[in-house]
Amino acid sequence: MISNAILKVLGETIRQRRSDLNISQEKFAEMCNVHRTYISQIERGLKSVSVKILFSLAENLNTTPSELIKEIEKKLNEKE
Amino acid sequence: MISNAILKVLGETIRQRRSDLNISQEKFAEMCNVHRTYISQIERGLKSVSVKILFSLAENLNTTPSELIKEIEKKLNEKE
Repeated sequence: MISNAILKVLGETIRQRRSDLNISQEKFAEMCNVHRTYISQIERGLKSVSVKILFSLAENLNTTPSELIKEIEKKLNEKE
Repeated sequence: MISNAILKVLGETIRQRRSDLNISQEKFAEMCNVHRTYISQIERGLKSVSVKILFSLAENLNTTPSELIKEIEKKLNEKE
């Protein structure tokens, strides 16, 4: 498995869910208590995401961390 | 949610599963392609774990990242 693919798919998933909830990057960053640049980098798959941050991202996207990860696994399997 | 609790429960979960599979810390580190000290720190909840590493840990524990995370969510809910 190419690990950069994980970050890319994670970023796409975050961006999609955030857009679906109609939350701006700025607002979302504020909710997660991180800088907007960091959210931007995560969404483009450029930044490593820690499990701690994952829990915070999921909470603010009205989902659970395991659901987020499951979605990523599914997308990665489809790509294989 | 206290985020240190996430790392602590993650560490305990990794250690438990590794022990159940009868894999030494040294061997497990080798399998995950990281240093043994890093595994030791993860298992004690002292080290941040990235989502990329989580995928590698899960794979080498014969489980999926989402299953690992689900187990952590369950344990955190029980503690609340």
